[in-house]
Amino acid sequence: MSKISFDNRLMFTYESKSFPGVNKVAALVRQDIFLVTGFHAGEYTKGTRCRNLIIYGTVDKSEYLGALEEDGLIDLEEVRGKWEVYSFQVIDRPMDGVDHAVVIAGSDKRGTIYGLFHLSELLGISPLVNWNHVLPKKKKNVFLTDEVNIVSKEPSVRYRGFFINDEWPAFGNWAMEHFGGINARCYERVFELLLRLKGNYLWPAMWNSNFSLDGPGLESARLADEYGVVMSTSHHEPCMRSGEEYRLLRGENSLYGDAWDFLANREGITRFWRDGLLRNKSFENVITLGMRGERDSRILGPDASLKDNIDLIRDVVRTQNDLIRETVNEDLGKVPRQIVLFSEVEEFFYGDEETEGLMNDPELSDVTFILSDNNVGYTRTLPGKDIADHPGGFGMYYHMDMHGGPYSFKWIGSTYLPRMWEQMTQAYEFGVNRIWVANVGDIATQELGLSFFLDLAYDIDKWGGRDAAVTKEYVYEWTEQQFSGMLPLSGRNRIRKIIWDYTGLLEKRRHEIMNADVYHPLHYGEADNVLSVSEGILKEAAVLKKKITEEDMSAFISLLYFPACGTANLMRMWILAGRNELYALQNRIEANDVAQEVDRCVAMDAELIDEYESIDDEFYKGFGRSEHVGFVNWNEEDNRYPIRHLVYGANSPRMLVSRADDEHYMTGLEWNDHPQVWRDMLRPDIDRIEFDIISGSEKPFRYRIETDCNWFEFSRTEGEVKKRERITLSVNKSLFSDKVTGSFEIEGIGIGRAHVTVEASPPDVPAGMYIESDGYICMEAAHFFDKRDTSDGAFEILDPYGRSGSAIKVFPVTADFVKARKRPSVDYRFMASESAEYLLTFELAPTTPVTFKTEQFLGYGVNGGKAVLVNTVKQPDIPFFFSPQWAEEARDSIKKVTTTIRCVKGENTLKFFGMSPGIVLERILLVKKGIELPGSYLGPKESYIKVLEEEGNE
Amino acid sequence: MSKISFDNRLMFTYESKSFPGVNKVAALVRQDIFLVTGFHAGEYTKGTRCRNLIIYGTVDKSEYLGALEEDGLIDLEEVRGKWEVYSFQVIDRPMDGVDHAVVIAGSDKRGTIYGLFHLSELLGISPLVNWNHVLPKKKKNVFLTDEVNIVSKEPSVRYRGFFINDEWPAFGNWAMEHFGGINARCYERVFELLLRLKGNYLWPAMWNSNFSLDGPGLESARLADEYGVVMSTSHHEPCMRSGEEYRLLRGENSLYGDAWDFLANREGITRFWRDGLLRNKSFENVITLGMRGERDSRILGPDASLKDNIDLIRDVVRTQNDLIRETVNEDLGKVPRQIVLFSEVEEFFYGDEETEGLMNDPELSDVTFILSDNNVGYTRTLPGKDIADHPGGFGMYYHMDMHGGPYSFKWIGSTYLPRMWEQMTQAYEFGVNRIWVANVGDIATQELGLSFFLDLAYDIDKWGGRDAAVTKEYVYEWTEQQFSGMLPLSGRNRIRKIIWDYTGLLEKRRHEIMNADVYHPLHYGEADNVLSVSEGILKEAAVLKKKITEEDMSAFISLLYFPACGTANLMRMWILAGRNELYALQNRIEANDVAQEVDRCVAMDAELIDEYESIDDEFYKGFGRSEHVGFVNWNEEDNRYPIRHLVYGANSPRMLVSRADDEHYMTGLEWNDHPQVWRDMLRPDIDRIEFDIISGSEKPFRYRIETDCNWFEFSRTEGEVKKRERITLSVNKSLFSDKVTGSFEIEGIGIGRAHVTVEASPPDVPAGMYIESDGYICMEAAHFFDKRDTSDGAFEILDPYGRSGSAIKVFPVTADFVKARKRPSVDYRFMASESAEYLLTFELAPTTPVTFKTEQFLGYGVNGGKAVLVNTVKQPDIPFFFSPQWAEEARDSIKKVTTTIRCVKGENTLKFFGMSPGIVLERILLVKKGIELPGSYLGPKESYIKVLEEEGNE
Repeated sequence: MSKISFDNRLMFTYESKSFPGVNKVAALVRQDIFLVTGFHAGEYTKGTRCRNLIIYGTVDKSEYLGALEEDGLIDLEEVRGKWEVYSFQVIDRPMDGVDHAVVIAGSDKRGTIYGLFHLSELLGISPLVNWNHVLPKKKKNVFLTDEVNIVSKEPSVRYRGFFINDEWPAFGNWAMEHFGGINARCYERVFELLLRLKGNYLWPAMWNSNFSLDGPGLESARLADEYGVVMSTSHHEPCMRSGEEYRLLRGENSLYGDAWDFLANREGITRFWRDGLLRNKSFENVITLGMRGERDSRILGPDASLKDNIDLIRDVVRTQNDLIRETVNEDLGKVPRQIVLFSEVEEFFYGDEETEGLMNDPELSDVTFILSDNNVGYTRTLPGKDIADHPGGFGMYYHMDMHGGPYSFKWIGSTYLPRMWEQMTQAYEFGVNRIWVANVGDIATQELGLSFFLDLAYDIDKWGGRDAAVTKEYVYEWTEQQFSGMLPLSGRNRIRKIIWDYTGLLEKRRHEIMNADVYHPLHYGEADNVLSVSEGILKEAAVLKKKITEEDMSAFISLLYFPACGTANLMRMWILAGRNELYALQNRIEANDVAQEVDRCVAMDAELIDEYESIDDEFYKGFGRSEHVGFVNWNEEDNRYPIRHLVYGANSPRMLVSRADDEHYMTGLEWNDHPQVWRDMLRPDIDRIEFDIISGSEKPFRYRIETDCNWFEFSRTEGEVKKRERITLSVNKSLFSDKVTGSFEIEGIGIGRAHVTVEASPPDVPAGMYIESDGYICMEAAHFFDKRDTSDGAFEILDPYGRSGSAIKVFPVTADFVKARKRPSVDYRFMASESAEYLLTFELAPTTPVTFKTEQFLGYGVNGGKAVLVNTVKQPDIPFFFSPQWAEEARDSIKKVTTTIRCVKGENTLKFFGMSPGIVLERILLVKKGIELPGSYLGPKESYIKVLEEEGNE
Repeated sequence: MSKISFDNRLMFTYESKSFPGVNKVAALVRQDIFLVTGFHAGEYTKGTRCRNLIIYGTVDKSEYLGALEEDGLIDLEEVRGKWEVYSFQVIDRPMDGVDHAVVIAGSDKRGTIYGLFHLSELLGISPLVNWNHVLPKKKKNVFLTDEVNIVSKEPSVRYRGFFINDEWPAFGNWAMEHFGGINARCYERVFELLLRLKGNYLWPAMWNSNFSLDGPGLESARLADEYGVVMSTSHHEPCMRSGEEYRLLRGENSLYGDAWDFLANREGITRFWRDGLLRNKSFENVITLGMRGERDSRILGPDASLKDNIDLIRDVVRTQNDLIRETVNEDLGKVPRQIVLFSEVEEFFYGDEETEGLMNDPELSDVTFILSDNNVGYTRTLPGKDIADHPGGFGMYYHMDMHGGPYSFKWIGSTYLPRMWEQMTQAYEFGVNRIWVANVGDIATQELGLSFFLDLAYDIDKWGGRDAAVTKEYVYEWTEQQFSGMLPLSGRNRIRKIIWDYTGLLEKRRHEIMNADVYHPLHYGEADNVLSVSEGILKEAAVLKKKITEEDMSAFISLLYFPACGTANLMRMWILAGRNELYALQNRIEANDVAQEVDRCVAMDAELIDEYESIDDEFYKGFGRSEHVGFVNWNEEDNRYPIRHLVYGANSPRMLVSRADDEHYMTGLEWNDHPQVWRDMLRPDIDRIEFDIISGSEKPFRYRIETDCNWFEFSRTEGEVKKRERITLSVNKSLFSDKVTGSFEIEGIGIGRAHVTVEASPPDVPAGMYIESDGYICMEAAHFFDKRDTSDGAFEILDPYGRSGSAIKVFPVTADFVKARKRPSVDYRFMASESAEYLLTFELAPTTPVTFKTEQFLGYGVNGGKAVLVNTVKQPDIPFFFSPQWAEEARDSIKKVTTTIRCVKGENTLKFFGMSPGIVLERILLVKKGIELPGSYLGPKESYIKVLEEEGNE
């Protein structure tokens, strides 16, 4: 077994003929090794004695490798000619005088770089070592054996990268603060991050920046090329010129004219593009084609026809191709080019019934079509069979940050991995494998999501597939990578829980569009749940923080504490704000206390940002300052912090009696008693109800609970209410064998008596069946009774996934069963309380049709009836992305499709069929017609289902 | 000329054969004279020498009067046999040794008493002298001449009085505090007040009180009779027993049985009634007949038919009549009896198509039918021609205080005199002249309204009629009476303004149902107007208060300062609460200041009550404590003080630009400019617009207004905004002769630019015609263009009246033109901007149909078209008083009837016809279809109308 020690005798080779970027990366790796071992690796001089040597190079650009190959010590054929592949070999005696070596042989510049960073990772260095100062665990006696020898695979996706976007105020201020601008010094940090994350491709910041001018000059572009970073530009910046360049250069006397208008200023614009291509042609680029209006606008006015637009784009692309032939390469096929189907441009590619789109235009044949998501993480169109073999292939522009409709999210990274996993894995299955680019905003706080995005793109076989639980594994590995240097396993497990908790909150609702009205303060306890999760995060994170040393604080705060606590505190703030508002409307005197709690949350929001921006000598300064509270428009215009509502107590003692989950209350007054009947205990699984005795006045009162019912147990039966007393009513259901009714009174002494009737049943119901109560049946999709797979597909459970934690989806994801006969299906069984009409709501992931058609079907059948198809697109006559449905679903992270069915009293079966691709079912809700459920964001809790013995649900 | 001086030689006669009550009143009058003159009048001994003598007595019960009549010095025939009449004569030498005398000769006990109090009034004593400690101006050389000699008329209404009701917590606590209970000592004060106000009839407190038990014993009843106060009981207390008596006396072993149920406990109930009649028969009473359930409930269950109810009442009344014959007087016709058509009982009298009601039942022939108002001051049914000659005549039970639906009002007296004048005068015209009884709650703070009610009942010829301006005169006299002792005329004029202002606010909305959402904080400036009136009251009242001496403070506070300032402060509090809420929703930083202002109002509310209850050695203690803030139910259950809304400023300076009367605003941001167009200046009468530059942040900003339009003038064009800057834009319309358009920008420096376009026209339009602007035409009913009187009736203007200050109504008020041909009418002329459909809304006083039919018609015609009839009752299929319309109109003090008409471009004429009685038209609103006016309580301001030269509107 070959073995190499990373001791004070370690050396690195150095070859001047290596790619300069490769040598730069080798220097970074030497620094990495120092962090682990405490030893600086020396530089090896050929022919000298060396105990442990790191030999690195690119195939056919390294004499060392050439010699080793000649000596038969390594097999470069495994990598030669491949894309970004490296061979990583621990061998003994690679050459005379050298005892042990790691040989890193890259197929190309980036292959070599990935190989070098692979060494760092093997030693426990995080890719975020320099981006977040994630310090490795210091080790003695560090060594590698040939057990780690590998030859890497070609990455799953050719170009993998991100887009620094919406960069003010955060990224811009950070860059100004640390580098004096968004310049080459700044980009060097970004390139390193990108490469360590195994990315290779970048859209640079462009709000007020010009990548190819601000380096200064071309320095940033030159440096990118040196590091092997493939530069490109965003969707509306053709020919390697950033969007702002034209604004700088235009003018009455400008060579480029004074109109971003290809019709009116063809000559100027063409010259502008030509000069850009000439300037950047020596670097490795993917060139954007096409043209949009300035600043994301339509290029032609609203009166232009679809054909006008298409003809113009066709003209533009032809011109651009000509320019590329002229300036870059006669052989256009050798020039990586892309065009982005984003926003309103999408329709130009698909056309309509009268007008053929650009999809099959010969000018675009070798051009990669970059598709895009719906702005919030759900992919839009995917390559159907009709276009799947487009020679240029497909890419995906994916938003982890958004400045635009339906809402902006720019503060803390809000990516929930299962969502990204499900959507990007599906995209890959549809053939989107040429370019993956994620809009990461400021990069900061997006590290987890970005890492996963690039790892998935690098190795879809490892991180894709059908099992959402792979994201759990990913988070496990990621936390090991970032936190094993600072915390023991128990601490890292706590971190994992925190990560799942805070990203889970964001999956339900993002920071910016959270507000006091999202979750109902009482109904279904949904607000209490969010509050409890949030407070758990804050508490756990605080405990962990105490264990972190000063030097590890930078990574801890930036990668966990700030994003998690910032999120949790914001969610808590809004939950309390909603509670404050409701309490105030009900004149609960406690409202004033809650207002103070809100105030503390607002203060903590600022404190968390201050801390994040000040730690590590202000290493993250600038990164925390995006507006993130209370958006009322798509952007931060008019955003609002919570309103605090203060009340005056009633002049006399005042009692309110309210269930903990109900906004209705009793006052117990003689003229106005509103007696309540509680029916929850008819549910087999419920034998306790919590209720509150509340004061509406500063004047406390005493209360007494009285009943002649012997099966009630109260947690208290008398006391004083200053603000609010929580009472638990428990019932011992074993005391009766049939439905029973009991009642009790809550007397506010000197005030009045509130009357409550309770209905309860013993817990015996049939197994395997959901039981209706309070007029509804709510079923988790994953808890189906039975499923039927066919040779063409099968439902699988996704867990974790979505707002409620799980879902089901058909695999293969590309299968379309709308017209097929071999539809897979799942069955749900439930007991209805009567033969009646029920509103049936399918709660689905807010996915979008995979084609440009406004069609995405689901199918169901009731009690053996034939399959009913429902188009989940509610206004098929307008493009989906102009519809209110899109905006609403994007905000709420749910698609709801409601129809009416007839149920029979007793047992019913609901079948859910595989239909259109992209359908992901999370929950099913049945509500008896005429019943109005209490308002809520997440809907009712799952109904009771007695699990079948042995068989059970999956 | 005879003349008597009120000097130290003044004496009073005393005859033991006089009614004891008369002598007691004479003693009060002697005390009154002392207050004016400083001299105590002596007691005259017959035959002695006397310079100035007050001779009083009742015809045929006084030797003095007998002698004077014999001597031909007075003519008692003018009073003899009349009802409550007195002769008041200043004469010289009435008898030997007496130089000068006032002779007061009453036709009966009360006639004499009124005559005595007339003397006090002539000397400047207020009827409220002992109720509110209204001190007269002390005078020297007080005398009367025979110029004051009069013989009074019989009062217009036979029984005139009030009902002490809803007496807890205020009246009850006051009585406990000062008299140890609602006993005879307490009632003596009430009787004096009643008599001084020329009333004679009382319904005593009955919530937890028993007038005939608590005196102690019969003492209160005995005392009433002594004073000549005719006692009665409220609508549901038959046979002179108060409602609570049965509760005290019932029981298993009770003689009276244990069920308030005439069917099940006929014997017990009958005995109960008989014993009541026997007990009180020796006093002067008006006996209530009929029966209702306990505590205002229906006597029979909801399943009983109308006929069941009627039969039961008939049976009850027959039994009661029998009892009265048996116990009081064989001749029933000599026993004043009443039965009250209140609430659900009303229908028993009118019956329906199948079932004859009780109206013409022989048992009720001589019984006075007491009709009632709609709980808030608008009469319900009135005696139509078919029943007008009912032998028992009619009475009216009128609410100046309410504990019940649609809402309670019990705090400060809220009667607006023109409303009461219009309704009670109309009732009188319909023949309601037998009994007038007002529910005055606690009496306190109702003094003005109660005075007017009783004065109107006493002398309808003086205070009734067709001219609402008589109420102005009344207020003039009343303020003279109360305040001339303490303030000069200028001060009394200020008081008059305050009275009109605060009762005018209450006419729009009463205290209890005022809240933050009634008036829109911005639209049409309605909230600003209320605020301005309120602040004016508070300021003026404070100025006046400084001029009031300690001894006058009791009257000043109780009759003016507390009711006016309590009202004004409450209105201000809610206006500010609404402003606070809106500002908070818009994140104006000023919201926090407004919240503090609200807080000060809440504090002042308590301070005003404390002051009222503590002045004059706690003379009014108990009277201020009724709940009065923020009712959300019909009663005070769950009532709410204002919620204060606190905001956080935006993190960066933030500009909002908003018209002072518009909730829309501009932020001036690049992405989100919302440019506005202001069209008000197209109105001929508008040449200035106010707008605000507002800060949404704690961080101030500078602003600059820029324009190239030369006809704009701004009150400021630059400055700094910390909270809000009010800018006035003025336009010199003489600078142009046609419609013009100009624009300007408000730049928030470092923030952005808001863009405003202004359209303006020169002011030339045709005269006599309302001009449409902003899509609507709003016309004050009183500003008609022309009117047509007929021999059967004519429209007259009521001013002051209603929410907007004036209205029109047809006289005679009893005339019904629905089927008649000689309809009077008025014309309105207006210019419509285009030929189109307009929504036509008539804003009417919230009167009710005068018959039991659910019909009350108005009529209109457009541009010469035929008369269109509209039933103002919106759900004729249910009784009006069970309809939401009733409740809504009662709360809002307005009835809105909307229909659609077609207008032609240019000149149009709308004719409004006299139709059903009771219709009072306040305003007319035309809104072009499709236009949505800004939400408001009072609606738009009156549209522009250029007054016709010379002719003009009336």
